[in-house]
Amino acid sequence: MYTVKSTLPDETLKVVGEALQGALVDLVDLSLVAKQTHWNVVGPRFRSIHLQLDEVVDSARSYSDIVAERASALGISPDGRVGTVAGSTGIATTAEGWQRDTDAVATLVAALSAVVARMRERMTATGEVDSVTEDIFIQVTGDLEKHHWMFQAENVG
Amino acid sequence: MYTVKSTLPDETLKVVGEALQGALVDLVDLSLVAKQTHWNVVGPRFRSIHLQLDEVVDSARSYSDIVAERASALGISPDGRVGTVAGSTGIATTAEGWQRDTDAVATLVAALSAVVARMRERMTATGEVDSVTEDIFIQVTGDLEKHHWMFQAENVG
Amino acid sequence: MYTVKSTLPDETLKVVGEALQGALVDLVDLSLVAKQTHWNVVGPRFRSIHLQLDEVVDSARSYSDIVAERASALGISPDGRVGTVAGSTGIATTAEGWQRDTDAVATLVAALSAVVARMRERMTATGEVDSVTEDIFIQVTGDLEKHHWMFQAENVG
Amino acid sequence: MYTVKSTLPDETLKVVGEALQGALVDLVDLSLVAKQTHWNVVGPRFRSIHLQLDEVVDSARSYSDIVAERASALGISPDGRVGTVAGSTGIATTAEGWQRDTDAVATLVAALSAVVARMRERMTATGEVDSVTEDIFIQVTGDLEKHHWMFQAENVG
Amino acid sequence: MYTVKSTLPDETLKVVGEALQGALVDLVDLSLVAKQTHWNVVGPRFRSIHLQLDEVVDSARSYSDIVAERASALGISPDGRVGTVAGSTGIATTAEGWQRDTDAVATLVAALSAVVARMRERMTATGEVDSVTEDIFIQVTGDLEKHHWMFQAENVG
Amino acid sequence: MYTVKSTLPDETLKVVGEALQGALVDLVDLSLVAKQTHWNVVGPRFRSIHLQLDEVVDSARSYSDIVAERASALGISPDGRVGTVAGSTGIATTAEGWQRDTDAVATLVAALSAVVARMRERMTATGEVDSVTEDIFIQVTGDLEKHHWMFQAENVG
Amino acid sequence: MYTVKSTLPDETLKVVGEALQGALVDLVDLSLVAKQTHWNVVGPRFRSIHLQLDEVVDSARSYSDIVAERASALGISPDGRVGTVAGSTGIATTAEGWQRDTDAVATLVAALSAVVARMRERMTATGEVDSVTEDIFIQVTGDLEKHHWMFQAENVG
Amino acid sequence: MYTVKSTLPDETLKVVGEALQGALVDLVDLSLVAKQTHWNVVGPRFRSIHLQLDEVVDSARSYSDIVAERASALGISPDGRVGTVAGSTGIATTAEGWQRDTDAVATLVAALSAVVARMRERMTATGEVDSVTEDIFIQVTGDLEKHHWMFQAENVG
Amino acid sequence: MYTVKSTLPDETLKVVGEALQGALVDLVDLSLVAKQTHWNVVGPRFRSIHLQLDEVVDSARSYSDIVAERASALGISPDGRVGTVAGSTGIATTAEGWQRDTDAVATLVAALSAVVARMRERMTATGEVDSVTEDIFIQVTGDLEKHHWMFQAENVG
Amino acid sequence: MYTVKSTLPDETLKVVGEALQGALVDLVDLSLVAKQTHWNVVGPRFRSIHLQLDEVVDSARSYSDIVAERASALGISPDGRVGTVAGSTGIATTAEGWQRDTDAVATLVAALSAVVARMRERMTATGEVDSVTEDIFIQVTGDLEKHHWMFQAENVG
Amino acid sequence: MYTVKSTLPDETLKVVGEALQGALVDLVDLSLVAKQTHWNVVGPRFRSIHLQLDEVVDSARSYSDIVAERASALGISPDGRVGTVAGSTGIATTAEGWQRDTDAVATLVAALSAVVARMRERMTATGEVDSVTEDIFIQVTGDLEKHHWMFQAENVG
Amino acid sequence: MYTVKSTLPDETLKVVGEALQGALVDLVDLSLVAKQTHWNVVGPRFRSIHLQLDEVVDSARSYSDIVAERASALGISPDGRVGTVAGSTGIATTAEGWQRDTDAVATLVAALSAVVARMRERMTATGEVDSVTEDIFIQVTGDLEKHHWMFQAENVG
Repeated sequence: MYTVKSTLPDETLKVVGEALQGALVDLVDLSLVAKQTHWNVVGPRFRSIHLQLDEVVDSARSYSDIVAERASALGISPDGRVGTVAGSTGIATTAEGWQRDTDAVATLVAALSAVVARMRERMTATGEVDSVTEDIFIQVTGDLEKHHWMFQAENVG
Repeated sequence: MYTVKSTLPDETLKVVGEALQGALVDLVDLSLVAKQTHWNVVGPRFRSIHLQLDEVVDSARSYSDIVAERASALGISPDGRVGTVAGSTGIATTAEGWQRDTDAVATLVAALSAVVARMRERMTATGEVDSVTEDIFIQVTGDLEKHHWMFQAENVG
Repeated sequence: MYTVKSTLPDETLKVVGEALQGALVDLVDLSLVAKQTHWNVVGPRFRSIHLQLDEVVDSARSYSDIVAERASALGISPDGRVGTVAGSTGIATTAEGWQRDTDAVATLVAALSAVVARMRERMTATGEVDSVTEDIFIQVTGDLEKHHWMFQAENVG
Repeated sequence: MYTVKSTLPDETLKVVGEALQGALVDLVDLSLVAKQTHWNVVGPRFRSIHLQLDEVVDSARSYSDIVAERASALGISPDGRVGTVAGSTGIATTAEGWQRDTDAVATLVAALSAVVARMRERMTATGEVDSVTEDIFIQVTGDLEKHHWMFQAENVG
Repeated sequence: MYTVKSTLPDETLKVVGEALQGALVDLVDLSLVAKQTHWNVVGPRFRSIHLQLDEVVDSARSYSDIVAERASALGISPDGRVGTVAGSTGIATTAEGWQRDTDAVATLVAALSAVVARMRERMTATGEVDSVTEDIFIQVTGDLEKHHWMFQAENVG
Repeated sequence: MYTVKSTLPDETLKVVGEALQGALVDLVDLSLVAKQTHWNVVGPRFRSIHLQLDEVVDSARSYSDIVAERASALGISPDGRVGTVAGSTGIATTAEGWQRDTDAVATLVAALSAVVARMRERMTATGEVDSVTEDIFIQVTGDLEKHHWMFQAENVG
Repeated sequence: MYTVKSTLPDETLKVVGEALQGALVDLVDLSLVAKQTHWNVVGPRFRSIHLQLDEVVDSARSYSDIVAERASALGISPDGRVGTVAGSTGIATTAEGWQRDTDAVATLVAALSAVVARMRERMTATGEVDSVTEDIFIQVTGDLEKHHWMFQAENVG
Repeated sequence: MYTVKSTLPDETLKVVGEALQGALVDLVDLSLVAKQTHWNVVGPRFRSIHLQLDEVVDSARSYSDIVAERASALGISPDGRVGTVAGSTGIATTAEGWQRDTDAVATLVAALSAVVARMRERMTATGEVDSVTEDIFIQVTGDLEKHHWMFQAENVG
Repeated sequence: MYTVKSTLPDETLKVVGEALQGALVDLVDLSLVAKQTHWNVVGPRFRSIHLQLDEVVDSARSYSDIVAERASALGISPDGRVGTVAGSTGIATTAEGWQRDTDAVATLVAALSAVVARMRERMTATGEVDSVTEDIFIQVTGDLEKHHWMFQAENVG
Repeated sequence: MYTVKSTLPDETLKVVGEALQGALVDLVDLSLVAKQTHWNVVGPRFRSIHLQLDEVVDSARSYSDIVAERASALGISPDGRVGTVAGSTGIATTAEGWQRDTDAVATLVAALSAVVARMRERMTATGEVDSVTEDIFIQVTGDLEKHHWMFQAENVG
Repeated sequence: MYTVKSTLPDETLKVVGEALQGALVDLVDLSLVAKQTHWNVVGPRFRSIHLQLDEVVDSARSYSDIVAERASALGISPDGRVGTVAGSTGIATTAEGWQRDTDAVATLVAALSAVVARMRERMTATGEVDSVTEDIFIQVTGDLEKHHWMFQAENVG
Repeated sequence: MYTVKSTLPDETLKVVGEALQGALVDLVDLSLVAKQTHWNVVGPRFRSIHLQLDEVVDSARSYSDIVAERASALGISPDGRVGTVAGSTGIATTAEGWQRDTDAVATLVAALSAVVARMRERMTATGEVDSVTEDIFIQVTGDLEKHHWMFQAENVG
């Protein structure tokens, strides 16, 4: 209906649009998963992980905004509604209730691992058609891989 | 499994727990609805409403954290997972795609109106059993009613 | 003419509206009385009281905004015009000209005492019908009672 | 009674004193008019004008303090009491109740226009006898003329 | 001897005064207990708990000031002298010497649990006679219950 | 005359140098066009667009500095003199005098569109010979495309 | 077309308008000349002068905004477009390419000297008809004369 | 039980340990005495002394932390529990109830005088065996002597 | 020897130079007098006046820098050496030793009164030949007259 | 022994790992070389270069942390120990003792030149296998090339 | 060659110079050891120790600068080059590769213990000839002993 | 007349008092000498030295306050009046008029050298009787020796 005119040609918009929409969904869910774990973690490392999780929330919220506004800037309407996120997220459903600190860390390692794999695919796909979008995925991937390392380092037994 | 011992007697925990869980869901969805509109609004008032919506996002995110941590403090595990939010939110599904500014404002007035009504019920329900939780709902309600006025004032034709 | 729809039922709006309008007038006048004294005080305690009075001005200005915007949020048009304030304030007219520090302190004790008494009535009246408004009056009253003590403590002979 | 000795000769004090007292009254009322409109404006430009009005409030409050303390510095007791302001303001009474955004802007253009005209007279009058006071009126006038332009620019149809 | 006149009637002052004095003593001792543990904790969680304890110290110091100044504002002289605190605190004596981290956490859970129970009684007692004081106890209780949860979550085995 | 030695081989310097010089000219002119419109816009959306334009000015000034200093870092003397800019800018001459808000927005959409197209060419050209310079054009393009969307969104009728 | 009504009588507007338009052009060009030199200076004093030049840029940008908005406030449309600046600046064209530090300093002394002379004329011309505009030229001149001294002091051999 | 190994030889630890433990007790009590007076002072100098006392509280709290952590760093468990402080403080018991400003000042002069005398002894005792601890006492003593002067200067009749 | 070229004609330089040199001396001495009193004041108002005096020090130091750099900017070498200040200050020698608060205030009233009178003469003298320098004296005079009022107000018996 | 699982396939890890380890060593040494020169530089440009060198230190420290944590994030243990750095740095040994400013600048130009050349190789090598790591080298190279220009510009004779 | 003249006599310079040079080497290596461990630590306490290590890095970097500039201030050229540090550090070589958190803590305790012992010797040696240098060693030693305690407290089993 | 009671015995007060009074005079004059040079320096290093001199001013002003308040804290009235400073300063009279940068640096080296020598004597004299005062002289000396090095390093030919 209302059209925002794109600076990209139509043929590349589909690839870029799908990558951005997929990333938006993953990042919104990552922010919810990290908050859920932030509230439910228990165990000797409670405080340390409680704080660390909020840094993941900050990353995920910040990048979801960047990704969605990149879509808008290209004339693609982003969809971050709760139903859309619930229906297409790449992260497995988190367990219900209190979570032991060891489990909380494992939950995050798994979620980050899943999202990083999909982001690397998006990085490759968009790299061929729009360097600006690719650059956003490079930033996202680098930051999530850093969180991924930190939670792994926590779980070395 | 892991129990956090409550400072409230068991008989009042059920009432307080339901109120907090319901509020958590509504506030998480409100933050997603406001962000969705923030990204998709178009029209002459774009910039003004784009900024105003982020103030709603800030309120909703901040109160969802306060509400969830109040539940935890009372030994009730909060549930803010995307599936739970999608399944029990009190806000109607937002329309897909770009939204004309007038419609964006109407979306927010409706969402805020629905959430305020439910918060007032929670305020009453918890007021009889836990003043601390009631006080949180008083703050939430007052703040959402202020946003409710501002969006209404925007749409006076 | 232009209506902002209230989240409160009509029957309670009248009580809440009168309380908020009365509080707005008292707080605007309190800010003017404190500024007038801030400019006209003389005596050995000049600097100390000159600074203390600006803290009252800050409180009064900040609460007058909160009170007026609460009225707007409930669909009640607030009236803080100079004529309205002059005609319905609960504070006695301040003396003209320079004021000796002892008199300046007495002026403030009297003004605060008058406003606190009226705020306590509003707190009670609204407590029965709208906890959100009541909570604002609780904050205002507590803060003004603190200023009331401090000016009293200043004038202990 | 209590006298603050002036650095100006008596014959020029009357001119300067009247100019400062008049300016104080206009500026206090301007702050009240702008706040009243800030609370009562409705319409599509609500948010933008609501914020813009608080910048006028900040200017008016800041300059009323500078003007009043200049009077005190010259040994002239300033009078910013609500009755004095209501009785001698140069601004017409603002309409009661909610104000459509177009009307709100017109209200401010009229108020600023009236105050600027009187300030220019005070600038001329004091320029002949006290450059320090004249300089304050130059600052006030320049700042109010800037607000005057901005509200005019808003109402260009 | 020197009297600060209260805005509350005499018959309610006794109830409010006792509640405030009791709260003051508990909060001063809580700040000392948390500092003592902050200095003496040892064990693998040293750093995390060392930092967490200073947040309890900040809460306790800040609320002790609010509670004592509320007493003063009502014309009741507060007593926070070391002998008074030692003689009437509601917290059990902390063990001497270094404390293993698990024990440090248990010490805080016990101290916070004892203080919360007494604060809830004060909240009820003052709620009937002075909403302003009750509101302070609501804030204190909510904040201490949050610390209580966090230390409990730390010690889930 | 005075030579700054480059870390790039001579054969690639020409391509990179032309791209940087062209970008510098476009960005300096963009900052002047946005300021011109910032001062001359009128109409109901005056304030909102007036503020939005200063964000474009900030972007353009900041990137013109980055682009010029990148040229210097490579041993290429940048030329941002007014005559050079007037003679080689890629932006059409802005209309004289006051601009209606709708026209102001259209002016910016056109200017941003022209600059983005040229930046995308520079991004491609330098990508083959100097990733560091390419990366600057990626940042510039992404940021200008965001402004491009926001002004488009404003003018949706 | 669109008119902003002035607070000055028509007969003085022409004088004030010409002075402000001339000043705007000089200040925009001064900012470009200083930036050009900032990027192209070389020699032992590189860093010191590189930094000093950005302080001139800040002054020139800030005053160009004040001067242009003063014109707008008086209903005179300011013209800061690149073609206008190139065609009417009072500053001689800067040399192309790298500049030895001694030459860079000389460039600035000459540019500042030229602009100050013209500003002093504008100060005199407007002083007779509008003190508010005159006051802006007083500020500009004082600040530019300070830069003028500092660059002269640098080149004392 | 749990041992932190010291960098000091055993024979000097006893002297340093006693000095640090004594200083900790005095500083904790000084913070309580200053707060007690902060809350209970009345008289014309109320506000000035009320503020000044909080600066003593800040000093005493800050140094008590430094002193206690110095003990811990040397492997000596510090004891700042309320019973220990009540039983071994070097400051006389403060009078109960409201305190006239002159008396409040005298209370502080006496308390500071007592603590300074003991600190000077500790400075001498530790100077022979641990310069690091001595240096802390030098800082404490210098700061307390400054407060000591300021309260004395206040009470010059 | 080393010459900084002035933007003022030679015939007016002498008047402006004498005014600036005189002002520099008075302001340097004012800063020393205020510091001397800051260190030596005793009496019940010690703290209040001790703080107030540092605000005079800040004003005097800041204006002495502005005045001296204005001289330099005009090519006049400023002389703020201790011997020059001691030999030509317009302020009477301050009494030796501790000063009772009442005397401290009287010292400042006298010093400020003397400096203001001389500044008003400089304002007049330079107003005829250099508006930029005159404007600095207007600022200085206004600020010192404000301090002059405040110290007078302190000593009203 | 302890393994952090990588998000990159094993075959590309070797290339990326060597590039990151080499960069870490060069950046740690660059920070030490710049500090050494910061402390030992003498000559007329002492202060300017002393300050400029600390900006190189900040860059080198910040990037060494980014590079090392990128290695960790990929499961590669980084080695920044002093012996490793001494044994494999790409920067020539700095001269002992005080350094004349011209020599200090030459030292930095040589060190930066050596490091940039190696970084450009790493940028190319990693660009084929991991865009995230390549992007870090792009940032590092761009920043070091900027320092390289600035020190070159300083030494233009 | 280039000499900075010392304020100390030649006979004491040798003692002071050796102490400062030794301290510089130890502190530079301590910063590298702490960073190495910061990047390579793994285990359940990863995050807590990762953060704690950066506080040691901050201390070591800050004191190495103070120590080196103290040497320069005394006319002694400091040597913080990587080869010098590798050849004369007082800290044992850190193990290669990932480090379990318990081992990481032990590494720091050992490193801090070694450095503190040498600093205490330097404190004694310089105390006899230069109090200013001795005072720096007092600060360093006190700070390192605090880190030493904290890492010990972490490792209490 | 008015006595502030000292915490030091009478016999040591004379030594400490003379040292503090001498230091006060030197530091006040140092601040004036540095400002004089700050205003009058010319030459290629103008800007660098102009800024560096203000760091000496900040040091000298800050330490003069510390030294004077230390005297007051010990019951010794400090004398920082312009006549006293002119009559007893340890710094030679600075040359009149503009100063070439090389001469400006030499002026400061000489002034700092003279003051440091006197401060070292005061450090020794007070070290035997009051460690707190000695510690102040240690700080002053260390800081001035650092400035002394920096200005020497500037003038290495």
